[in-house]
This record gives sequence, C-alpha cells and structure tokens, in this order.
Amino acid sequence: MIEPLSEAERADALDALADWDHDDGRDAITRSFKFVDFSEAFAFMTRVALLAEKADHHPEWSNVWNRVDILLTTHDAGGLSTRDVALAQAIDALVE
Amino acid sequence: MIEPLSEAERADALDALADWDHDDGRDAITRSFKFVDFSEAFAFMTRVALLAEKADHHPEWSNVWNRVDILLTTHDAGGLSTRDVALAQAIDALVE
Repeated sequence: MIEPLSEAERADALDALADWDHDDGRDAITRSFKFVDFSEAFAFMTRVALLAEKADHHPEWSNVWNRVDILLTTHDAGGLSTRDVALAQAIDALVE
Repeated sequence: MIEPLSEAERADALDALADWDHDDGRDAITRSFKFVDFSEAFAFMTRVALLAEKADHHPEWSNVWNRVDILLTTHDAGGLSTRDVALAQAIDALVE
C-alpha cells in the first residue's frame, strides 16, 4: 500500500506542476503534449516508457499522431501519491 | 483523398479480421491486446509504431500497463479504407 498525498501535499504538488491539470473524479493529474509529427511523439513516448519502467510506476496514456495525453494516478493509493509527482516532474524535464 | 471501403469490401474485411471489432459510430476497427507486463506491452507498441510510420498510417491507441487498445480508421476517407485493413493484418502478424 502506498500512502496517498494529504490535502496540503496535494495542493503544494498541484501548485508546483503548473502544466498539469487535476482530474477531481479520479484524483489524477493529466497533461497533453503536441509534437511536430508521429515520429517525435513516439520518441517522447519511448523516453517516458523508460522513465516509467525505471520508477516502476506507469502512466495511462493515449496517442493520436502528434499528440500524447498522459494521466497519472496511483491505483494502490486510491489517488495521487508522491510517485505521480516524481514521474510528472521527470516527464516535464524531458520537454523543458 | 483516400477512397473509403465499399459496403461489400467492408463486410469482407470485417469477416477476415476476426479479432477486430467494428465501431459503427466512427466506422473504425478496434482491438485490445494484453501482455505479461508493461515491458512487453511497450515492446509491442514500438513494433506497431514502426509499422505505422512505414505505412504512413497511424493508430489511435492507448496503454495502461499491460494493455494496449488500438483503433484504426482513415480520417481522409471518413471511415475504413484499405490502409486500415493492411495495418490491422500487419499488427495481427506481430502477435500470431
């Protein structure tokens, strides 16, 4: 079992993750990415896959050509945990 | 502009693609794949990405850990075309 974020931790995390939206219904964070084409989008996905596998924490995500939509939440915590915050920060670092 | 399948061609294609479902609303075909873990699922996605890029025809798809959901349709044809049938057959060949 992984601890979910407290209310205060969640508020701090959402403030820090300026490019991510909060999905209240699922207590998840979401971000949409657009690239030049499929090749660039899938290259990004491959880098995210490596991050996810290394962290043993995986996204729910979809791709349509140049667009990648990512949702992060922690099933074992029933909502956001520090794992989501860490993965979101690592993903952000890829596109900065 | 790419030609959509005729009614007869669509019926033949759907018969041949036994593992794919037809999404009537979008005139698309969908198939769900399950793997042992994320690593196997993403390895499959990488092979599909190479097929798609080679064919210049890309899926709408999503992944959650060991599961990959693929939807194929041809936007330029307003529905299914021979491109979807060819890509579905190539994807099927990966998992046979």
